[in-house]
Amino acid sequence: MELRGAGVSPGIGFGPVRGIAGAVPEPGADDAPAGDAEAETAAALAALAAVADDLEARGAIAAEVGNREGQDVLNAQALMARDPGLADGVRAKVAEGRSAARAVFESFGVYREMLAGAGEYLAARVTDLDDIRDRTVARLLGLPMPGVPESDEPFVLVARDLAPADTAVLDPAKVVAFVTEEGGPTSHTAILARTMGVPAVVALPGATDLADGTPVLVDGGAGTVVVDPSAEIVREARDAAATRSAALAEATGPGRTKDGHSVPLLANIGGPKDVPAAVENGAEGVGLYRTEFLFLDRATPPTDAEQERAYREVLEAFPNGRVVVRALDAGADKPLAFLPPPGEEPNPALGERGLRMLRRHEDVLTAQLSALARAASGLTTKLQVMAPMVTDAEEAAYFAAACRAAGIEHPGVMIEVPAAALRATDLASEVKFFSLGTNDLTQYTCAADRQIGGLAHLQDAWQPAVLDLVASAACAGIPCGVCGEAANDPALACVLVGLGVTSLSMSAPSLPLVRAALARHTLDECRAAASAARAARSAEAAKASARQALPALASLGL
Amino acid sequence: MELRGAGVSPGIGFGPVRGIAGAVPEPGADDAPAGDAEAETAAALAALAAVADDLEARGAIAAEVGNREGQDVLNAQALMARDPGLADGVRAKVAEGRSAARAVFESFGVYREMLAGAGEYLAARVTDLDDIRDRTVARLLGLPMPGVPESDEPFVLVARDLAPADTAVLDPAKVVAFVTEEGGPTSHTAILARTMGVPAVVALPGATDLADGTPVLVDGGAGTVVVDPSAEIVREARDAAATRSAALAEATGPGRTKDGHSVPLLANIGGPKDVPAAVENGAEGVGLYRTEFLFLDRATPPTDAEQERAYREVLEAFPNGRVVVRALDAGADKPLAFLPPPGEEPNPALGERGLRMLRRHEDVLTAQLSALARAASGLTTKLQVMAPMVTDAEEAAYFAAACRAAGIEHPGVMIEVPAAALRATDLASEVKFFSLGTNDLTQYTCAADRQIGGLAHLQDAWQPAVLDLVASAACAGIPCGVCGEAANDPALACVLVGLGVTSLSMSAPSLPLVRAALARHTLDECRAAASAARAARSAEAAKASARQALPALASLGL
Repeated sequence: MELRGAGVSPGIGFGPVRGIAGAVPEPGADDAPAGDAEAETAAALAALAAVADDLEARGAIAAEVGNREGQDVLNAQALMARDPGLADGVRAKVAEGRSAARAVFESFGVYREMLAGAGEYLAARVTDLDDIRDRTVARLLGLPMPGVPESDEPFVLVARDLAPADTAVLDPAKVVAFVTEEGGPTSHTAILARTMGVPAVVALPGATDLADGTPVLVDGGAGTVVVDPSAEIVREARDAAATRSAALAEATGPGRTKDGHSVPLLANIGGPKDVPAAVENGAEGVGLYRTEFLFLDRATPPTDAEQERAYREVLEAFPNGRVVVRALDAGADKPLAFLPPPGEEPNPALGERGLRMLRRHEDVLTAQLSALARAASGLTTKLQVMAPMVTDAEEAAYFAAACRAAGIEHPGVMIEVPAAALRATDLASEVKFFSLGTNDLTQYTCAADRQIGGLAHLQDAWQPAVLDLVASAACAGIPCGVCGEAANDPALACVLVGLGVTSLSMSAPSLPLVRAALARHTLDECRAAASAARAARSAEAAKASARQALPALASLGL
Repeated sequence: MELRGAGVSPGIGFGPVRGIAGAVPEPGADDAPAGDAEAETAAALAALAAVADDLEARGAIAAEVGNREGQDVLNAQALMARDPGLADGVRAKVAEGRSAARAVFESFGVYREMLAGAGEYLAARVTDLDDIRDRTVARLLGLPMPGVPESDEPFVLVARDLAPADTAVLDPAKVVAFVTEEGGPTSHTAILARTMGVPAVVALPGATDLADGTPVLVDGGAGTVVVDPSAEIVREARDAAATRSAALAEATGPGRTKDGHSVPLLANIGGPKDVPAAVENGAEGVGLYRTEFLFLDRATPPTDAEQERAYREVLEAFPNGRVVVRALDAGADKPLAFLPPPGEEPNPALGERGLRMLRRHEDVLTAQLSALARAASGLTTKLQVMAPMVTDAEEAAYFAAACRAAGIEHPGVMIEVPAAALRATDLASEVKFFSLGTNDLTQYTCAADRQIGGLAHLQDAWQPAVLDLVASAACAGIPCGVCGEAANDPALACVLVGLGVTSLSMSAPSLPLVRAALARHTLDECRAAASAARAARSAEAAKASARQALPALASLGL
């Protein structure tokens, strides 16, 4: 049986299914306690403490793999599990004759009601409490722990969708593929899979119905999952993957089309630790240096010297290339302790983030730009600095002036707000380059939250409206790169080049396949694919038309 | 002294300043208790109960004036004030020797820390708790209650910004004008002011520095506030307002430009209760019938008969006109008990709302469309039905098919998602008309939450990028109205007509001024104003250029 979803991270994975464990049942109100009140209370409190310990341990692992947001969430949950009021509640419930599991369940109920009764907004956070409760109850009843399964052998992880907390502690050596029912090309699952280089298929209806242990063959390029495949099918798929690997190994050197049109291929990085993978995959520089890692999880901004060091280390790695640094993109899903939003934000994605936030904290912007200018001084690397979340020409002018005052010669802006793409010509007269953030641009253009799996079909950079905006930005007369997830898709990368995009930046593992796809098509073929895609009326039709115009994709098994 | 902000609701208001009371101070840790522990505890608990009663009473008033969201918030707060755990905390703190006010303050601290420590997301809800705490402490210390002032004489309400909870219980007879430091043309303050017909100036720096009792003259058209004006200035302003009223009284009949180009002027309504104001102000029909009122605050959808009655009542009021009904727009800030979102939504404005939600609950859509078809049967009124939150041609086709199946001949779609405006030609082949929702269209195009005061400059339909999208939708070959707040602004209304918009729908009180503004300009003047606005690079410049091209605005005191 072959199931079809959306392939979001290419490659072949074969192994047994492991699902994320199902719901923990509610302990019966009349369940008899196993021991006397003292023993029962001790068991409940021990389970709570163990869950707290486990959450903190997972938090520490998450921090080690660089996932500090994951750690924050886990530590906050641990704090709740250790709440003395909760322990008092458990004691009282056991004294009334409840079992340990039931006492825990009911004690959480008090907090739960408080949150649930406090209006729609708090109600949504009830899931965090429920997770702690379910972990404690599972432990007391000897049930499998909810969340990512533990396994000694490699497996295919199957879930409705993966949340950051689920995947914070994933062991890359154990997961051979991801398959999810929901999610789209910019979902957490997809981004994680590409970063880890693991094949992934998302938006596959019925995925969670696959029984644990069923062997499946996942093709993250074609978007297919073969259930219980024959040995021959597995062998063929592996042979095809080997052929593709060989084709990729041949594609080396700077990015260019078949007819020699140069398209620099750059890497998206989050700090110096990502440089080796970029170099290994032949990146010609960095197209998006996210500087948030320097600022997260601290009460005060990093010192000038710290910043200068972190920037210089990356700049030095590309002496003949360019490094495009994005100024601190705080706010929305990346709040910083020392840059709190001025008030409550009902929709953080539409709030005070990026440059909007930096303008309120000009000292932070000035310090970062100065550190960047000093870091680049004396090096041959071309330093370009861009502002996130820019809406209009006035904001672009503001940022360009700040860069020039700091001695930075190549200011640019991210194009991720529809207004900025629509009025690209206005903005182009203020700065030297654009970089298209296709994830956010798609999110705003289609008004569809990247974090919501059910809207995956609208979160697709293949949407003709998004391609229109890319064309608008790419035709404004200054260099225009793409640093969003769209650049990771070899077919879409060709379309972007056809729309006039001048460089592509992506997760390092995606570079070889994009390099190979570009090398097998002429600029005219890319332009024809772009026109075909823009003439379509849906993302699906755009993708299908473009692929027809890009004949050599098939030779790469795409 | 004259201060200048943004005029968002025209008219002249004169009266003494009343500010929303300032912060309630933290009671000292060493404040001596006034009485013994028993008396102190009783005082604290009585204050909590009184605050809860007051919150509930304000909730009931809010519900009476149709503000059910306001009621929900207030009732949830009352529930917190009555929390038995909180009362226990107060008793314990008083027993430790704290004053009643201090005991209340500290007891809230426990909940506050729990929320604040539970990650970024819960931290933002702390303000709700603080509000209850401050009300209780204010009551115990005999301080003025935070929130909207109570007053026997008419006054000018001055605040940083007005939240729905602040204004839920406003007495329209007492407020002669609003002045706020923050907010924009689509802020809660602006919408409320226009609905109430009260002059308002927002985005006025330093507004909250005005001392209570200072007489001020507010011009909600010019956006000015004159502090302590001479009697002559007040008289002149009142004379000018009278002149304008006379001009408005002259402007009657159907909407048209000076040279006779017809532009039907319609009313936005929320139910049959809004029909009289629409008729009184000369509406030629209804351009936006929001049907949510039928669905809010109930556990099950309204019956078919209930719906049919509510629709027919409005249709019958405009036998020679049209009524444009918007299908249920649930989700985002209008959640319904029987249509819960499928999961947590970090950014509800970008979530499953409007048609996205209706597709998941097709029975609700089908029932509504059938009720509409039955309601219109046998009447001469032209019934048009449109879907909210449509993104692409496929969704438009889906809705059109659903309408036709129900026997509705004029299906249309709201254009409020940038993608829909960009690909308007694709959508136009599926439906019979468009209606531009400029508030949401602006919010998404500029990625700026309508609910955040600090982003007011980006929430402006004068943004050239928004005007570009209006032009795109208006040129797609089918009738294209506007039903967003943009239509309320007489100058912008002329620009919209110049961009090709074929009808304008607005709050009923705005109709006369827009009718007069249109009647004094030719279609060519409107087109010239539209071109001038689109040639500008900022909202401010667009507005200034357009006004220069619309010479007769001055004769209306605009």
